[in-house]
Parts: sequence; structure tokens; C-alpha cells
Amino acid sequence: MKKLGTILTPIAAGLMLAGTASAALQPVPTLTDAEMKQSAEIYFDRCSGCHGTLRNGATGPNIAPAKTLKKSLAKLEKILWEGTEGGMPGWGREGKLNKAQIKMLAKFVQIEPPAPPQWGMPEIKKSWKLVVPVDKRPTQPPKANWQNYFGVIQRDAGKVSIIDGDTKKIISTMDSGYAVHILRSSASGRYMYAIGRDGKATMMDLWATPPNIVAEVKISLDARSIDTSKYKGYEDKYVVAGGYWPPHYVIMKGDTLEPIRVVSTIGYTYDTQVYHPEPRVAAIVSSHVKPEWLLNVKETGHVLLVDYSNLENGSITETTIDAERFLHDGGWDSTKRYFLAAANARDTISVIDTVERKLVANIVTGTKPHPGRGANWIDPEFGAVWATVHLGEGLVSIISTDTSKKTAWTVVREWELAGNSLFVKTHPKSKNVWCDNTINKTKAKTLTVFDIDHPTAPPQEITFKKTVVHLEYNKAGDEVWVSLWDKDGAIVVLDDKTRKEKTRITGLVAPTGKFNVYNTVHDIY
Amino acid sequence: MKKLGTILTPIAAGLMLAGTASAALQPVPTLTDAEMKQSAEIYFDRCSGCHGTLRNGATGPNIAPAKTLKKSLAKLEKILWEGTEGGMPGWGREGKLNKAQIKMLAKFVQIEPPAPPQWGMPEIKKSWKLVVPVDKRPTQPPKANWQNYFGVIQRDAGKVSIIDGDTKKIISTMDSGYAVHILRSSASGRYMYAIGRDGKATMMDLWATPPNIVAEVKISLDARSIDTSKYKGYEDKYVVAGGYWPPHYVIMKGDTLEPIRVVSTIGYTYDTQVYHPEPRVAAIVSSHVKPEWLLNVKETGHVLLVDYSNLENGSITETTIDAERFLHDGGWDSTKRYFLAAANARDTISVIDTVERKLVANIVTGTKPHPGRGANWIDPEFGAVWATVHLGEGLVSIISTDTSKKTAWTVVREWELAGNSLFVKTHPKSKNVWCDNTINKTKAKTLTVFDIDHPTAPPQEITFKKTVVHLEYNKAGDEVWVSLWDKDGAIVVLDDKTRKEKTRITGLVAPTGKFNVYNTVHDIY
Repeated sequence: MKKLGTILTPIAAGLMLAGTASAALQPVPTLTDAEMKQSAEIYFDRCSGCHGTLRNGATGPNIAPAKTLKKSLAKLEKILWEGTEGGMPGWGREGKLNKAQIKMLAKFVQIEPPAPPQWGMPEIKKSWKLVVPVDKRPTQPPKANWQNYFGVIQRDAGKVSIIDGDTKKIISTMDSGYAVHILRSSASGRYMYAIGRDGKATMMDLWATPPNIVAEVKISLDARSIDTSKYKGYEDKYVVAGGYWPPHYVIMKGDTLEPIRVVSTIGYTYDTQVYHPEPRVAAIVSSHVKPEWLLNVKETGHVLLVDYSNLENGSITETTIDAERFLHDGGWDSTKRYFLAAANARDTISVIDTVERKLVANIVTGTKPHPGRGANWIDPEFGAVWATVHLGEGLVSIISTDTSKKTAWTVVREWELAGNSLFVKTHPKSKNVWCDNTINKTKAKTLTVFDIDHPTAPPQEITFKKTVVHLEYNKAGDEVWVSLWDKDGAIVVLDDKTRKEKTRITGLVAPTGKFNVYNTVHDIY
Repeated sequence: MKKLGTILTPIAAGLMLAGTASAALQPVPTLTDAEMKQSAEIYFDRCSGCHGTLRNGATGPNIAPAKTLKKSLAKLEKILWEGTEGGMPGWGREGKLNKAQIKMLAKFVQIEPPAPPQWGMPEIKKSWKLVVPVDKRPTQPPKANWQNYFGVIQRDAGKVSIIDGDTKKIISTMDSGYAVHILRSSASGRYMYAIGRDGKATMMDLWATPPNIVAEVKISLDARSIDTSKYKGYEDKYVVAGGYWPPHYVIMKGDTLEPIRVVSTIGYTYDTQVYHPEPRVAAIVSSHVKPEWLLNVKETGHVLLVDYSNLENGSITETTIDAERFLHDGGWDSTKRYFLAAANARDTISVIDTVERKLVANIVTGTKPHPGRGANWIDPEFGAVWATVHLGEGLVSIISTDTSKKTAWTVVREWELAGNSLFVKTHPKSKNVWCDNTINKTKAKTLTVFDIDHPTAPPQEITFKKTVVHLEYNKAGDEVWVSLWDKDGAIVVLDDKTRKEKTRITGLVAPTGKFNVYNTVHDIY
């Protein structure tokens, strides 16, 4: 028994921690139950994306009480009202939160975070609704050119619209989860899936006239990503969605969203190998060359290759690749062998080789890269390249993906951009690279267009009357669609060649992401 | 925003839980800090193995406050003192705990469990001691027949002895972790590894004269299992150890125990898919046919196939197979293709096919199977079989492993055993199957020996003056070694053919498990 004392000392030490650590700090404030609930809702809506549900930090810093109790309430209120140089929005200054809310939130972040509930299979299954059974759905596609349909997120309205890319008509508008983050297509293109920030996955049948919701399920309490099985033999078979809280992913049947399996991502950071209670699933992409998905696990810096070929035997295979922390979004290179993922708070693009199953490179770009899926084109000097824009500065970093060249996996070209940006886009048939400047204070209404064949020529700036965000091509690759992000919003359809407005689709509330069926199925970007 | 209310209701509900649930229960008692610490130590030593650090239950029931607060302190004290029919030991009655300790422990289990500390790479690395660097070790094996050495655990003394199986001499006694659970050998046999219940892994060099400790590392705060890489090309390269708390496994360099990687096992139960905070790593076996380990994850009922071939690329591949809950120990069939694992609280043996990478069968045997590694022999009627004994009853369940037969993966024969047992053993050269009856109240001093060629004949019972436990063969397969588990203990060496005592090795404090180098390297059982 003599050794037992030393074994358990850490347990005793753990017990004492709260008492000793708080001595030199501000007193812990109190909130009523109603205020706690209101604060938790505001925190979820405004703060948890960057700081985490448990406040350990990711894109934003750690704001656990051990940190926040070092600051006065007045100081915290100022930060919440004004924002910071580091990228924290000024929630008061921007009119998003009022003074009473700011005061409440300052107290809330000094109090231990409420233990968020679990959300396992019993809860997921209970939330599952099969709205239209498989045998009640159309057996033929519509006469319309449905592969040129666009799914359009109306983020702040909690809706998704389907727009016919040929006629430019809104043919259906459906209730989705809250603040939908992305839409993905099944391998056939028939089904489109939305994932809400509230974890609600919605499955839409584009063969129905008009397109309708056929199933929905709440996979977690906070989520950002969804994708489908695209490998030969598994087309339209499975869907996977990634949770922020709980930190896990859920595999569902592709035709009904019936949940099959929940897998936790809780684990250890890739570098320091310290336990992290909240490694959130960010972007997911679907391999075309293996029966696998690639999942970015943000806080631990792992890319998971998840093999879905043996689920029917009650088995799943996960290859965990050490990449870089704070992985967020990313996309394929033009060969679809390499996955380029942005570790945004580490200013890095991690390159994963899906054949060799390893990290090829961690490439430092600019401040907080945010590629969306990125953009692939042929540079006249460097050959095949892939590019990202940045949240933290006006910069396009262009990375060689041509493995026959010595410059492979280095930044071969940098373009100065008008402002901090969210998305970059091109198309194999285009000579233009389009970037938004959405999160720049002065340039948010401007698109910047570069010429692939004249990479050193100054870009064109095209200015609109409202904030513009997110670009998507039509199936033919001759139109670029961009969203005017406003309550009284619209989609502007630009002719890719002339860069002039061709038409405008109105009657949309705060449109953001747009996903062309054909381009989404084939990962064309 | 309207949907947000319903999203966060569960968080609010979670916040309220403690308050509402405890209304109808006993009042929560209090303990001083010193009592909490003492109780936590007793709980770790006596209770956590069966009930879990977080008290969710495994081999024993859930004893979280939500359950224990339904009982009076007097009732809890009675259970702790007397034990139960269900298998709970009578800690007071057996003289292991006094009245004051029982009273304290009854209160402790009504109080929320202290949050156990984490133990990640920084802590693991800090605990690592390289006692003898590789270049300071012998380059030649000793003249002795070191492949017939035995490692012997002196559990209650926190020591491991090496005994020369030819001379029967104790040639070295070394300090190990607390209450060592198992010893394993490197693929070459040169190194022997011990794992203590305190998570301390100890590496012994059998080529040294006398054998000595060359490295140690504390992989967790509570642990039970360790094994080595045995696949061709990876001999002596890696060691893996499984933690109970934190629930994770740690991969180390085989020649130094330098820790390389920590992987969490936190996740969802295989059947209900409910989150479990404490899925503990029980038995580990090393595949001879692939660069893999198989790990039993107890609470979630998963067997993990962990591929260690890509660690140098910063990548690890885990195949998770749904098996059955409360997996504990297990071993290979004679072909070493199939792993048979005991889900003891589910009275089940799960069979894993390492080639097809799936569950082959869940076979119901008796009450709480506990095979150790089990035993393989050729039954005159059924061919190749594997057997387990049981914690909960006196029964040997004999399972056909001959996949050419219709009876494969069924219980083909049952032998009544004198009592509840811990271990069963035979050897390819033997016609005897030896069983202990260690945890039976009246038969703990008795060994039972069955005759393979006369499977329906009554077995022989051999009685000793002290409790006997655990059997191991020598390299030649003509001696059986059994431990007299006592402060003034000994190993009795029996002639396998005559079943008579050949010699006795004395001067050992509470010897339990014994591991012959050759048999451990080659998984002969």
C-alpha cells in the first residue's frame, strides 16, 4: 500500500485546484437561472464557434474563468462591445447585442461553463423524421436540367431554396436547421443535404416537383459539416455529419438519414498530446478514390480518414493523421488525391496524401487561411496550383500542387487582395479567379477578379451596393453566382467572360452559400 | 433566432438536473478533505476495478450517487461489510477494512466522485526513466537457458522476480509498479515488461546478469495491460500499454519505453451508442499475422485492431469492431487468426476474426467467464477447441475453434469445476487441462486436472495447504508451475505427466502470475 499515496496525489491535487487558483482573481459573479439560460444561448450563437463550448479556445483565445477572472467586468464589457484588433467582433458597436446583454455575457464568461448535455444515439434517433419514405418518392428525374439546380442557403432565415440554374427561378424554399453552414450532394446528385448550426441535418429530394424535404435528423447540438459516400459501389449509400458539441460524427443511411453509428472525436492534441474534451469536427470531404471520408478535427489537429466499407459488419476503420491544430475548411487538389486543409489559427495549410496516407506538408500561408474548398487552376508558370484566401488579411496564397515540380507544396505566388476574405473560386473552363472581401470593414461590397493568364496584372474590383459573399459556378462553367448578403438579399448572376451582371435573382433573405449540383457532386472548384 | 430556444433546452435541462433529481433521496453526507483523500485511495484499491473510477459500473453495478443516495448509510455499510450474493466481497467480514473505514466509504460513495486528473504526454514523459541506455546493455545473451526464465509477480509486495526455469533459482527481484497485473515479453524474448495497477510500466532486460530494470514510465493512473509488437519487421520495436484511468492507450519505443503516442478510448457504447466517459482498456494481444494489436475496450464493448506500421509517419489506424460490453481478458485460438475475448458481465465470449476483421460470434458460456488467455487443445471428438473458466461458477466451457466443422464457435463440452476460478492452462505437448478454483470460498486451495483424452472422466483434485492461483508451463511443456498465494508464499513445480510435486521455490511474497519467456513470446496456451 505504501505506493498508493503517490499514485493518488494528483487526484487530491485536482480536488484542491479550484480553491487555490481563484485566490488572486476577481470574485465570481452570479446570474439568475433565466440569465444563465439567455447567456448560454447568446454564447452559443456568437461565441462558441471561435472559443468553443467549454471555452478552451480555437480560432479565438481560451476564455475559461481562469483567464476571464483576471479581467474586471468593465474590461470584459469593453471587449464585448468594441471587439479587438485580433479579430474579435464588436458585438455592441455592430448593433448585434445591447448593453444589458453585454453586461450579462461579461458575467457569464467569468462563471464556469455549464456542462453541456450529451447527445447520443437515443436522442439522435428520437429526432429522426422520415418525411417521405423511399417508395413514395419519384422514380424518374424531372424534365428540368436538375443537375444545374443550385441549393441556396438563406442563413438568417433558417431556410434553403432550390433555384433552377437554367431558368433562374426559385422552385422551392424549405425549412432547414438554424444558420445552415453547408450543403452537399449525394453521389448521384439527386439528394441535397443541409446541416444547421443546431445540428439538424435536412435531406432534400431534387427529383420531386417541387424539390421537398424527405428526411431530417438532429445529429448533435452544434454542427458544421456533412458529406456523402461517393466511392464506386457506395453512391448515395451513406451520409456523415460532424458535430461541434458533442464532438463526434454520425453516419446515416443515405436514402433516409436513419442514424447508424456515432463515433467520438475526443482525444489528445497531435503535438503536445494533452487531453482535449472538445475536438470539433470541421470540414468533411468525400474521397472519390477510396470508400472514405476525410474529417478535419479542429482542436486536436488530426485529419481522420474514415473507411465506411465495413459498417454492415459492425466495424469502422479510422486512420488518424497528425496535421496541425485548428483545422477548419479545405478541399481537393485537381487530381483529388491530395486534401488541402486550413489550420486557420496556425496560419497553415496541411496537405494530406490519401494514397500514402500521410501528411505531405504543412505550408505556412497568411493570417488565418480560409479557403472554403479552395480553387484549382493551371498557372502559366507553375502548372497546377490550388489557392486560399485569408480571414486575417487581404491575401491569396497560391500553392503548387504539381508533384512533378520542385516547387510542389510551396507557395509559388501571392496576390494582394482588397480585404479579409471568406471565399475564392474558379472553374476548369474559366480564366478568372474570383474572391470576396466579405469580412473587410471597407471592402465587403467588393469582388476581386484575377486573370489566370496574366497573374501579375492588377485585378479588377467590382463593387456592389451590398455586402457580397460566396461564389459558385453553374454547371457549364460560364456563369458566376454571388450573394448579396442582406435581409432584402439577392443572387447576382455574372457572365464569367465579360464579368458583367447577366441577371439577378431577388426575393431571398440573407442568401450566403450556393451549391451547384453538378459541381458539388464532382468537387469542381 | 426562434429555433434557438429549443436547441438549448437540453443545456438548461442539464443545468437543472442535480437540483431536481436529488429531492427524494438521502441527504448528501460530508467528509473532510483528509477523509476524501483516504476514501479515494481505498476506493481506487478496492472498488474502482469493478465499479469504475466514475462509478458507472462494469463487472459490478453502477454506484453513482443517483443510485447510492437511494440507500441509507446503514444499508451501504452492511453491503460493504458483508458483501453480496452478486459477488461483492465482504470487505469488513474478510478483515480487509475496519469499521471506521467502512463508515467513511459508505459516505464517500454517496458524494459525487472527485474529478480524476488527466494524465497526458507531459505527465507521462516526465515519469519516464531510462535506467540503462541501450548502448550500456549486454550485446550477448547469458549462458543460462534464458528462454526458460519465468517472470513471477509478487503482487502484494510490488515486486517481480526472475526465476531460472532450469535451476529453479530466483536470479533477480526487482521493484515494479503497485499490484502488477501482467507480464509480457518482447518478440525476441529478451525484454520482459510489467504493468502495475498504478499505471507504471517496468522494462526488464533478461540478458543482463542478473536481469535488471532498464526503463520505466507511468502511462496512466490506473492500468491493467501491456504488450509488444510481434509482427515480422517490428520485433522488439514498440510496446503498448492500456489505461483504466485515463481511459487511453500509450505506445512506447520497445527498447527504452520512451512514450510516442497517447490515444483516447472515450466514446460510445457499441449497442445503445450512449456516450461513456470511461471505456477502460483491458486485455491486449499482439497479432503475429499483421502489424497490429488487439485491445479490449471494456465499457463500450469494442475490440480495437490498432495498426502500428505507420507511426513514423505520424499516423495510426484503428479498426473498431462491435463485440460485447465489459470485455476483459482473452487469447488466441491455436491458429492465432481468431481472438476470443471474455465479456464477463455479459456471460459471453466474443470471437474476432483478424483476417476478415469482424465479429464472428458472441457465444454465451457461464457466469462471468474469465479465461486469462484461455487454453487450446485437440478434443478427441470435436477437434481444435479453446476453453474458459468462470468467476461466477465452477464451470469450464469448451468452444470449438475448428472452422471446418459445423460446431465451430459453439460450446461443445462443459466440465463441472470444483469452484469459481481465475485461470485454465494446458500446453500442446500435454494431455492435461489444469484449472485453479481460487475465488471459491471452500475450494481455493484445490487444483482441478482434466484428461484431454478422457473428457468425460471425472477430474483429479489436488489440494494444497494454501490458496493456489495461476498456472504456467515451462518451455519444454513437461512442468506446470502454480503459485501458493500467501505472504509466506511459494511456487510449486509439478511434473505434468505424474501430476506430482517435483520441487518447490520458496522465499516469495504472495506470488501470483508467472510468465515463461518462450511461451509468452509464442503465445503458447
